Amino acid sequence: MSNLIWAKGATTAIDDRIMRFCAGEDVILDRHLFLYDIRASKAHALGLLNINILSQEEYDSILEGLEELTRSYEEGNFILDERYEDGHSAIEAFLIEKLGDAGKRIHTGRSRNDQVLVATRLFLKDTCQSAGEIARRIATVALDCAESTMMQPMPGYTHLQRAVPSSVGMWFAAIAESFIDDANLCQFTSSYIDSNPLGTAAGYGVNLPLDRKATTEALGFDRMQISPIYAQNSRGKFELQVIDTLSQLLLGVRRIAWDLSLYATGEFAFVDLPDAYTTGSSIMPNKRNPDVVELLRAAYSVVAGARAEIQSVLSLPSGYHRDLQNTKPPLIRAVNHALAALDLVPDLLANLTFDDDALRAAISDDMYATDVAVELAASGVPFREAYRQAAADTEMRSGRDPAESLQKRVSAGGAANPLLLELRDRLKKGSR
Amino acid sequence: MSNLIWAKGATTAIDDRIMRFCAGEDVILDRHLFLYDIRASKAHALGLLNINILSQEEYDSILEGLEELTRSYEEGNFILDERYEDGHSAIEAFLIEKLGDAGKRIHTGRSRNDQVLVATRLFLKDTCQSAGEIARRIATVALDCAESTMMQPMPGYTHLQRAVPSSVGMWFAAIAESFIDDANLCQFTSSYIDSNPLGTAAGYGVNLPLDRKATTEALGFDRMQISPIYAQNSRGKFELQVIDTLSQLLLGVRRIAWDLSLYATGEFAFVDLPDAYTTGSSIMPNKRNPDVVELLRAAYSVVAGARAEIQSVLSLPSGYHRDLQNTKPPLIRAVNHALAALDLVPDLLANLTFDDDALRAAISDDMYATDVAVELAASGVPFREAYRQAAADTEMRSGRDPAESLQKRVSAGGAANPLLLELRDRLKKGSR
Amino acid sequence: MSNLIWAKGATTAIDDRIMRFCAGEDVILDRHLFLYDIRASKAHALGLLNINILSQEEYDSILEGLEELTRSYEEGNFILDERYEDGHSAIEAFLIEKLGDAGKRIHTGRSRNDQVLVATRLFLKDTCQSAGEIARRIATVALDCAESTMMQPMPGYTHLQRAVPSSVGMWFAAIAESFIDDANLCQFTSSYIDSNPLGTAAGYGVNLPLDRKATTEALGFDRMQISPIYAQNSRGKFELQVIDTLSQLLLGVRRIAWDLSLYATGEFAFVDLPDAYTTGSSIMPNKRNPDVVELLRAAYSVVAGARAEIQSVLSLPSGYHRDLQNTKPPLIRAVNHALAALDLVPDLLANLTFDDDALRAAISDDMYATDVAVELAASGVPFREAYRQAAADTEMRSGRDPAESLQKRVSAGGAANPLLLELRDRLKKGSR
Amino acid sequence: MSNLIWAKGATTAIDDRIMRFCAGEDVILDRHLFLYDIRASKAHALGLLNINILSQEEYDSILEGLEELTRSYEEGNFILDERYEDGHSAIEAFLIEKLGDAGKRIHTGRSRNDQVLVATRLFLKDTCQSAGEIARRIATVALDCAESTMMQPMPGYTHLQRAVPSSVGMWFAAIAESFIDDANLCQFTSSYIDSNPLGTAAGYGVNLPLDRKATTEALGFDRMQISPIYAQNSRGKFELQVIDTLSQLLLGVRRIAWDLSLYATGEFAFVDLPDAYTTGSSIMPNKRNPDVVELLRAAYSVVAGARAEIQSVLSLPSGYHRDLQNTKPPLIRAVNHALAALDLVPDLLANLTFDDDALRAAISDDMYATDVAVELAASGVPFREAYRQAAADTEMRSGRDPAESLQKRVSAGGAANPLLLELRDRLKKGSR
Repeated sequence: MSNLIWAKGATTAIDDRIMRFCAGEDVILDRHLFLYDIRASKAHALGLLNINILSQEEYDSILEGLEELTRSYEEGNFILDERYEDGHSAIEAFLIEKLGDAGKRIHTGRSRNDQVLVATRLFLKDTCQSAGEIARRIATVALDCAESTMMQPMPGYTHLQRAVPSSVGMWFAAIAESFIDDANLCQFTSSYIDSNPLGTAAGYGVNLPLDRKATTEALGFDRMQISPIYAQNSRGKFELQVIDTLSQLLLGVRRIAWDLSLYATGEFAFVDLPDAYTTGSSIMPNKRNPDVVELLRAAYSVVAGARAEIQSVLSLPSGYHRDLQNTKPPLIRAVNHALAALDLVPDLLANLTFDDDALRAAISDDMYATDVAVELAASGVPFREAYRQAAADTEMRSGRDPAESLQKRVSAGGAANPLLLELRDRLKKGSR
Repeated sequence: MSNLIWAKGATTAIDDRIMRFCAGEDVILDRHLFLYDIRASKAHALGLLNINILSQEEYDSILEGLEELTRSYEEGNFILDERYEDGHSAIEAFLIEKLGDAGKRIHTGRSRNDQVLVATRLFLKDTCQSAGEIARRIATVALDCAESTMMQPMPGYTHLQRAVPSSVGMWFAAIAESFIDDANLCQFTSSYIDSNPLGTAAGYGVNLPLDRKATTEALGFDRMQISPIYAQNSRGKFELQVIDTLSQLLLGVRRIAWDLSLYATGEFAFVDLPDAYTTGSSIMPNKRNPDVVELLRAAYSVVAGARAEIQSVLSLPSGYHRDLQNTKPPLIRAVNHALAALDLVPDLLANLTFDDDALRAAISDDMYATDVAVELAASGVPFREAYRQAAADTEMRSGRDPAESLQKRVSAGGAANPLLLELRDRLKKGSR
Repeated sequence: MSNLIWAKGATTAIDDRIMRFCAGEDVILDRHLFLYDIRASKAHALGLLNINILSQEEYDSILEGLEELTRSYEEGNFILDERYEDGHSAIEAFLIEKLGDAGKRIHTGRSRNDQVLVATRLFLKDTCQSAGEIARRIATVALDCAESTMMQPMPGYTHLQRAVPSSVGMWFAAIAESFIDDANLCQFTSSYIDSNPLGTAAGYGVNLPLDRKATTEALGFDRMQISPIYAQNSRGKFELQVIDTLSQLLLGVRRIAWDLSLYATGEFAFVDLPDAYTTGSSIMPNKRNPDVVELLRAAYSVVAGARAEIQSVLSLPSGYHRDLQNTKPPLIRAVNHALAALDLVPDLLANLTFDDDALRAAISDDMYATDVAVELAASGVPFREAYRQAAADTEMRSGRDPAESLQKRVSAGGAANPLLLELRDRLKKGSR
Repeated sequence: MSNLIWAKGATTAIDDRIMRFCAGEDVILDRHLFLYDIRASKAHALGLLNINILSQEEYDSILEGLEELTRSYEEGNFILDERYEDGHSAIEAFLIEKLGDAGKRIHTGRSRNDQVLVATRLFLKDTCQSAGEIARRIATVALDCAESTMMQPMPGYTHLQRAVPSSVGMWFAAIAESFIDDANLCQFTSSYIDSNPLGTAAGYGVNLPLDRKATTEALGFDRMQISPIYAQNSRGKFELQVIDTLSQLLLGVRRIAWDLSLYATGEFAFVDLPDAYTTGSSIMPNKRNPDVVELLRAAYSVVAGARAEIQSVLSLPSGYHRDLQNTKPPLIRAVNHALAALDLVPDLLANLTFDDDALRAAISDDMYATDVAVELAASGVPFREAYRQAAADTEMRSGRDPAESLQKRVSAGGAANPLLLELRDRLKKGSR
C-alpha cells in the first residue's frame, strides 16, 4: 500500500483510514515468516547466480547481507514493524541500502506473489514437523501411562452412563493410538505441501530460464510446484490442509480435556490434575479450577475459526487477489495457538493422579451384565436369549470384581490384550 | 428407539413426536451403508466361527442368508425403510427370522457401536477411492487439453485485472497439477482411515477371544484399530478427514467454475460451454445460462456445511453418545454431492471451446511491461531501474505478439517449458 | 432444467447425470413451499385483475383452480414429485391444463425468481412465528417450574467445580429469561423479513404497472420490498437471519441438554428424566439412556451446518445465480429440525424430577466461603481482607444450611428475590 | 492465572509455557474494554454507596480515582499491558494503591464474572450503535447516488449473463434498501442485548441487597438481566447476535465489492474506482489494482471466522468456564474489522464514476425480449404464447433504446417508479 501515500485528490483523513485497513497487522504477522523469507531470498540469489543475472561477487555480497540481516533480526536489532510495508520489501530495502545495484537485482524474475508463497510454504512445513513431533511425544507418554495402568479399573461410559468396567490404561491407550495416527497425518501433510513455488512469479512464469531445480534443492523441497497458476491457486488450499491436520490433533486434545474436566468434578472425583495445570479462584481460596484443561478444550475453536475464515476468502477465480492477504492472520493465529496447546499435553498426561478408590466405587454391579450375557453366549445360549437372561437375573452379576472383568477382556485392544507393543511399533515406523 | 413404544405414562402424542425426532431419516440413510454392513456381518460371522461361537453349519447358513439378503436388496425386493429401526437391526432380524438360533448368535461379541463404525469405515474407504479415481480422470483430461492449447494465448489476471499474457494451456495445466496432488491426498486419506474397528464392541472390548485378525483380513483392512475407546472416539474424526479431503478437491472445482462463469459472460466471451452444461432461461429463449457451472461452484458449500455440522457435534467426552448419530446425515449428503459434482468435471473440461479471437483481443500492449522490464534486467540493468524504465517507456511494449511472449516463458512451468510429461509421471506414480 | 431434455449433441448418459445433479431434491423440497406458492399465486392473480391483465371471469376461474389444487394437495391426491421440474411450474401447468388461456396468463409480469422469493418469505415468516410461540411455551413452563423450586437447593458450579449454593428454581429462571429474549428476537426477525418481493420479476422490474400494494396487502406483508435487485440480493441474507435466530434458541436448548446430560449421570444423579425421553440400551436392559437429551444437544449442529452452507454459497455478485438454489436444502433442513427439537423442550422441562437428597448431599461446607466473606465485608471489613479471613477460617463456613444461604440471596435475580413476576410481565409484553 | 507463580513442584520451564498459554493476549484485548470497565466500576460504587457498603467519602474518592485512571489511560500515561493479569485487576489494584481500604471495598458483591459481562455488554451496545450509524450513512449516500443515476442505463444480469436493461440508479437503490434494513437490525440487536448483568456476581447472586436498579440506570441500560445464571449463559450468545448482525451488513458489503470488482475489469470497464481506493502494482506501474474493494470483499470472512470460533467454544453446561475467555479475541477482532470495513463504504460509493458509453455498449438487442413479451401479454396475448412469439420474432426487439425501456419499468421499485422517497422515509423512521 506504500503507493497510497502518493495518491492525489483524496483527503488525508480518508487515506489514513484506507491505509490502516489495507495494511492491517500484515507486517507484524510477517515476523513469523521473515526468516523463511530470507532463506528463500538466499535460494533465489543462488538461482540468479546460476543464470548469470548475478555475478559471483554480487551473489556473495547478497548472501552476506542476508546473513547479517538474519543475525540482526534474531538479536533484536532489526525490528520488523510498521515502518515497512511488509517483510518482503524490508528485505529488499535492506539489501539495496547496503549493496546498491546488487540489491536492486535481487527481485529479478521474482514477484511478491511467489515470495510470500515460498515463505509461507516453509512455515507450513515446519508446522507439520513440529505438530508431528508433539504428537509422537503425546503418544509416547500415553503409552507409558497405559502400561502402568492397564489393569487399574475405571468405569466405561456410553451416553455418559456407566456401562461396563474399563481401565485407566485403556483410556491412555486410546489417546496413544489417536496421536499415532495423527503423527502419520502430519508427515503426509508435510509431503503434500512439500513443493516449491519459488520461480512462478506473479502466476504466469517469467521470460528467464530461472534455475528452479537449484532453488528447490537449496530449500530442501521434495518437488517443484510446476504450474505458476496452480502456485497462486494453492494459496489457501495448502493452508487449509495444514489447518485441517491440526484440527485432527486438536479433536483429540478436546476429547482429553472434556474427560478430565468431568473426572475432576467433585461428583466424579477420579483425577487430581497436576498443580501447575490448575489455578486458584479469585473468590474462593479453597477452589482449584482446571483452567488449563478448559483452555485446552477451547483450543479447537481457534482452529475451527481460522478454517472458516480462510475457506470463506477462497471463493475466487484463478490468480492473485488482494483478498488472499486475509488468509495470513487466521493461519498464523491457528498454527501458533494449536502448537502451544499441543505442547502442554505430554506433561499434563504424565502428571495425572487417578484416585483408585473413587474409580472402584463408581463401578456398580449392573455394569457386569454384558459380561454375564457374553459368558452365557460363549457357553452355547444364543446371544439374544443370553441377553434376556442376563437382564433378568441380577444375581449373576453381583459380587464380581472389576479386575477380574478386565482380565477376561482378551480380544485385541481389550485390557488383557492391549497390544501396546504393536502401537509402539506403529509409532516407530508409521502404520503403513 | 424401538423401546419407546413400550414406554408408559406419556401420551401417545408426545411419543410420536419424540420417536420421529429420534429416528430422523436414519434408516433411510442406512441404505448407503447397508451392503457394507452385510459385508462386515459376514466377516464377523467368520470370526465367530474361528472361536467356535458358531458351528460350521451355522456359519454356512448365516453366510447364505447374508448373500440372499444382498441379492434381495440389490434387486429391490428387500426395502430398507421405516419399518426397521436401522440397517443393523434389519440384518439381525432377517437372520433370526430365517435361521432361528443361528441368527440369534450373530450379534455375539458385537455391538451396534462397532457395527456402524465398520460399515461407515468401508463406505469412507470407497469414497476415497472413487474421489481419487475421478481426480485422476480430471487430471488426465486437463493434461490432454493443456498439451493442445499450451500456446493458445489468453490474458493472465491478477486482481481480475489484465496482467501479463498467459495461455489456455497454462490454465489447464494448473488444473492438472492441482488434481494430481488431490489424488495423492485421496490415497493417503484412504490409508489413514484403513483400520478395522470391528471387534471393539461398545468401546471397552469384550470377554471373548474375538479373532480380529481374521476380520481385518477378510474385510481388506490394512490394520486393526486396536483401542476400543479410540474406535469410538474416531467417529466423526475420520469422517472429517474424508470431508476435508473432498474439500480440497472441491476447492479446485469451485475455482474452475468461477473462471468459467466469468469467461462465459458476454463481457469476457472467452469460452463456449458445452450445450449439455447450459440451460435455457424460462423467460428469455435467446439465453443460455451456465447453470451446471454455477451449481458446481456451489458444491463446495455442501461439504463446508457438512464439516461445520459434524465438528459441532463432536465436542464431547470419550465414548458413544447418541449425538453421534447426527454425523451420519451430513456425511452421506456431502459424499454423495461431492462425488456427483466431481464426476461432471472431466466431460466439462474436455468439451470447452475457447474463442481465439476474443482471447487475443483481450491482450493489450501494456501487458508486455513485465517482459520488457525482465529483458532489461537480463541485459544488465538492475531490476528496480529496469522496472522504472519499462514503466516510462510505453514504446518498448507496443507491437508485440502474445505467442512470442509465451515462447520466452522458459522457466519450469512456463508456457514454453510446462513439464507436462513430469506431471503425467507424477500422476502415474504419485508425487512422492 | 427442463430444457436439458431437448439438448442435442451430448450422450444420454451425460445428460442423465447432469440432470440429476441439477435437479437435486429441489422439487421434493418444494413441498414445504407449495402452499405458500399457491397463496402467492392467488395474490398475483388479484394484482393482474386490478390492472386488467385478467378479466374478472379469468381471475375467478384461476382462484377456483388454485383452491382446488390446494385441496387436492392437502388431501394427498396431487403429488408433487420428480414429474415436475419444481413447484412453480407444477402450479402453472395445472392451471394451463385446467383453464387454457387464463392459465397461460398467470405468469404475466412474474418470474420464477420473485415466485420462489415470495413463497420462501412466507415460509420464513411462519417459521419465526412458530419458533416464537414455542419459545414462549418454554419460558412459561420454565417460570412455572421456577416458582415451585426456587428454594430447592442445588449446587452452583463454575468451571464445573462446586462453587456456591444455588437452587433448582434459579436454574429454571435462567431458562425462562433466555427464551423470553429469544421470543422477542423471533418477533423482530419476523418483522425484519416481512417485506413483499412479489412483483420484482427477474430482479429488474417489469414494463407493467403491477399492483404491488394490493399483493402486499393480500399476503399480509408489513411492507413492500421495493428494489427488485435487493429482492434478489436478499436471497440467502434473510434465510441467514432466520437461521441465526433459530441458533439463538438452540444455544439455549444445547445448554439445557448439557446440564441434563450431566445431572443424569450416575455421578451427579440430580435428575430423573421423564421415561418417554429415555431409551433402553440394546445391550444392557438395566440402562436408561438419555437419547433425546443427547439429540437435543446435537440439534444446534444442524443449524450451524446450514448456516455454514448458505453463507458459503452467497459469495456472489448481484442478481440471480443458479448457485442460490443450494440455499434451499439447508434452509428447510434447519428449520424443520430446529422446530422439531424446540417442540420437545416444554414437556421435557415440565416432567423433570429433581432428587432432593442428591442435590443437598452435593453441597459441601466450603461452598459457603463466599457468603462468609460477604458477611464480613457487610460488617465493615474491606472485601479484600474479608476474602482472606474467609479463606483461612474454615469454621465460619461449617454447619450452615443451603436454604438459609438461599434466603440471603436478596439481590434482584437471587433465589430470595427472583423477580419471576417481572419475567412473566416481560413475557407478556416483550421486554422493550 | 496469577496464582500460577506460587505453584510448587513444577519446573519453571513448564510454568512459563502454561502461563503464556493461559494469558494469551487477554490483557491487551482488555484495552478495548477498559473504559467500559471503569464506567461500570463507577456504577458499582454508586450501588455500594446506596447500600452503605461505601461511605460517601469512600465513594467520592473512588469516583475521583476512577476519573483519574480514565484520564491517565486516555492520555497514554497508564498503559494496560502484561504487567497486569487483566483490565479488571488493573482497576482494583490502582484503587487499592491509591486509596487503601476504600479501594479494597470496590470488589464487594462483585465478581470478575459479572465485571467482564457488563464491560463487554457496553462495548457491544456501542458496536451496534456505530454499525447502525454507518449503515445509515451508506444508505444515505446510496439514495443520493440513486437519485441522480436512476435513468443511466446499465445491463441487468442473471447468471452473470446479460438479461434485461437496468440502471445504475437501480443498483444504488438496492444498496440503500439493504442498509436501511440493516440499520433497523442494528437498532434491534442493541435493544436485544440492552440488559444489565452487573450485580449477578459469579452466576448465583450474592447475600447483599445490591441496588441493581441504580446501576442499571446509571449505565443507561434498558433493563436488568435478572437471572444470574442466564447472565453467565448469555456470554457468547449475545456476542453471536452482534456478530450475526455485522454479518448481515457485511453480506451487503461483499456484494458491492463483488460487483465493483467485476465492473472494474478491463472486460466490463463500467466503473472507475476512486484513486484512493486503488493501488499501484509493485510490478506494473500502468496497473491500478482494486485492492480496497478486494479487502472489503474479504471482510466478511473475518466475521464468519469469529462466528465459527465463538459458537465452537459454547458447547458447554451452564455457568462460567475458562473456555469462555476464548470468545474475547474473535469478538474484538470481528467488531473492529467489520466497523473499519463498513466505514470505508460511504466514500467509496460517493466517488464511483460510471462510464456511460461502456454501459450502453453492453446493452444488446436481445435484452429487450422480455419487454416485447410483456407488451404482447398486455395487449391480450396469453403470456406463454407472447413469450414464444417474442422468442421467435427478433425484429420486434431491434432498434430499441435502453432509456425508453427504463421509462416503462413503472411497477413499484422499477426505474420509472423507484420510490426513493419512501426509502428515505423508512430510513428516517425505521421501516416498521
